[in-house]
Amino acid sequence: MGKYIFGVDVGGTTVKMGLFDRDGMVVDKWEITTRTENGGEHILPDIADSINSKIAEKQYLKEDVLGIGIAVPGPVNGLGIVSKAVNLGWKETHVKEIMERLCGVPAEVGNDANVAALGEMWKGGGQGYSSLVLVTLGTGIGGGVIADGRLITGAWGAGGEIGHMHVMDGEEEACNCGCKGCLEQYGSATGIVRLAKRMLDKTQEPSVLRGAEITAKAVFDAVKEKDPVAQEIAGEFGEILGKGFAMIASVLNPAAFVIGGGVSKAGEVLFDYIRPPFEKYVFSGCVDARFVLATLGNDAGIYGSAKLVLDTVI
Amino acid sequence: MGKYIFGVDVGGTTVKMGLFDRDGMVVDKWEITTRTENGGEHILPDIADSINSKIAEKQYLKEDVLGIGIAVPGPVNGLGIVSKAVNLGWKETHVKEIMERLCGVPAEVGNDANVAALGEMWKGGGQGYSSLVLVTLGTGIGGGVIADGRLITGAWGAGGEIGHMHVMDGEEEACNCGCKGCLEQYGSATGIVRLAKRMLDKTQEPSVLRGAEITAKAVFDAVKEKDPVAQEIAGEFGEILGKGFAMIASVLNPAAFVIGGGVSKAGEVLFDYIRPPFEKYVFSGCVDARFVLATLGNDAGIYGSAKLVLDTVI
Repeated sequence: MGKYIFGVDVGGTTVKMGLFDRDGMVVDKWEITTRTENGGEHILPDIADSINSKIAEKQYLKEDVLGIGIAVPGPVNGLGIVSKAVNLGWKETHVKEIMERLCGVPAEVGNDANVAALGEMWKGGGQGYSSLVLVTLGTGIGGGVIADGRLITGAWGAGGEIGHMHVMDGEEEACNCGCKGCLEQYGSATGIVRLAKRMLDKTQEPSVLRGAEITAKAVFDAVKEKDPVAQEIAGEFGEILGKGFAMIASVLNPAAFVIGGGVSKAGEVLFDYIRPPFEKYVFSGCVDARFVLATLGNDAGIYGSAKLVLDTVI
Repeated sequence: MGKYIFGVDVGGTTVKMGLFDRDGMVVDKWEITTRTENGGEHILPDIADSINSKIAEKQYLKEDVLGIGIAVPGPVNGLGIVSKAVNLGWKETHVKEIMERLCGVPAEVGNDANVAALGEMWKGGGQGYSSLVLVTLGTGIGGGVIADGRLITGAWGAGGEIGHMHVMDGEEEACNCGCKGCLEQYGSATGIVRLAKRMLDKTQEPSVLRGAEITAKAVFDAVKEKDPVAQEIAGEFGEILGKGFAMIASVLNPAAFVIGGGVSKAGEVLFDYIRPPFEKYVFSGCVDARFVLATLGNDAGIYGSAKLVLDTVI
């Protein structure tokens, strides 16, 4: 049986690629450009060329390769078919079939946010937890749910879309998805900026944030300097995120929430704001969930897609 | 390998018992009384006696029995240990170990609401769906989550507690669990009565419900007679339940919600009120979830606990 696994994370501008051994040690790591022109028709052939060249460069036989894992930004069904991936220009694309044909080794495909959860469980902040929810607080909010060590992909590959869970009645602005009151509207980097601007408009209190460029980082930097307006913004952020996590915990009873994405760079101070509302809203039997930081950063997808192969092929 | 399976559902007043073949056909079905005195110490020996007598009556050998599945009203960990079951008088109880010792065949233990979901998937309203959420609208709200054919029990056996998912800010009355704004406060039989009383106090409109005994059944009977106040109550019920289901769907993307419990006797009219708010609040990728009625009634637990044995022992 093959000793090596390729983990591939297809993003809208670059494709991250990793070559791993079966223990998850990185043998090699590199990137190629994502060519999205013409409906993204070059993306999979480019990845296959890069993998085939790497196999040749390392003087591996095809039998040395256990498989290729591929994380894509879109819903994936059980047959490795992506129904749509807007950032790549893809309509329905039979990723598993195409990659297996172009590379001659087994391929497994997963949604990028889901797959990142597998990566964090395997080699990141979620190590030691077999039931966890990865929450990626970036421009939007992505998520991945793992129960008993296995990814919950859902009936149509849309499992873990926790950014679009309704958490707030009475919201008047619409989320990118068209709904009103999604978690993403408050807990993402853009959500924090929105909360900050609302708060600064509402109060006359002095704040280092006034006149500055408002970003999630600026807000949490100000929180660390004990700026009272920033603390109030963080309080609102934590109240909504803690409530959302409590809703999820009451349904899934995970052992841990693993928090990643750009916003998580603020560090454990986030948990000071998220934990108390979480405890207020959660069912008592689920209150012991831990909050931990993701540690793999942008590499979560290549680790997770490699793990997807390990979990499926072996 | 054994041909027969016992399915046991331990309730606070009676223990329901079923003897099944491996295709899920009922060979026999009976009940015994639950003796909760002295910390419920008689319950498991009583069940074991009843099973051992049945094995003797049927002239089976122990080898003919594949195992015993037991559904209990409390959280169950992966070792078949129940941490507490208030309705039975139990503190920590090693159910699996005790039953295997008393009966000499393998035993598997699950939470009753979770196990009922397995039963409905196997032989009830959830047949054909491998990802589903069972929602039991009774005095309270129970739940069970199945993803890819497997029960999600959670890290501490509290998975599927959807009755205690927070769905409403600003609620002033507390739920039995101590929190405010739980799904159970609006969607259960008692929740509907609460909504009905509030609505009747708020409006002067005539209604067949005025002066009558308010029950969930009375409300939905009045809905079927097109009583406008009852329709308004059902609208509020559906708005909150549909929103709660949408939250769950955005995280899990189930293929179906299977609705059981006493309230579900109202029938498909419930879905007329739940479906539109569900569609309003849910993430677009998860909108195709079906709503179906549970069909096994009080037998869901014995079917599900038998299925638990089939899934684990084979």
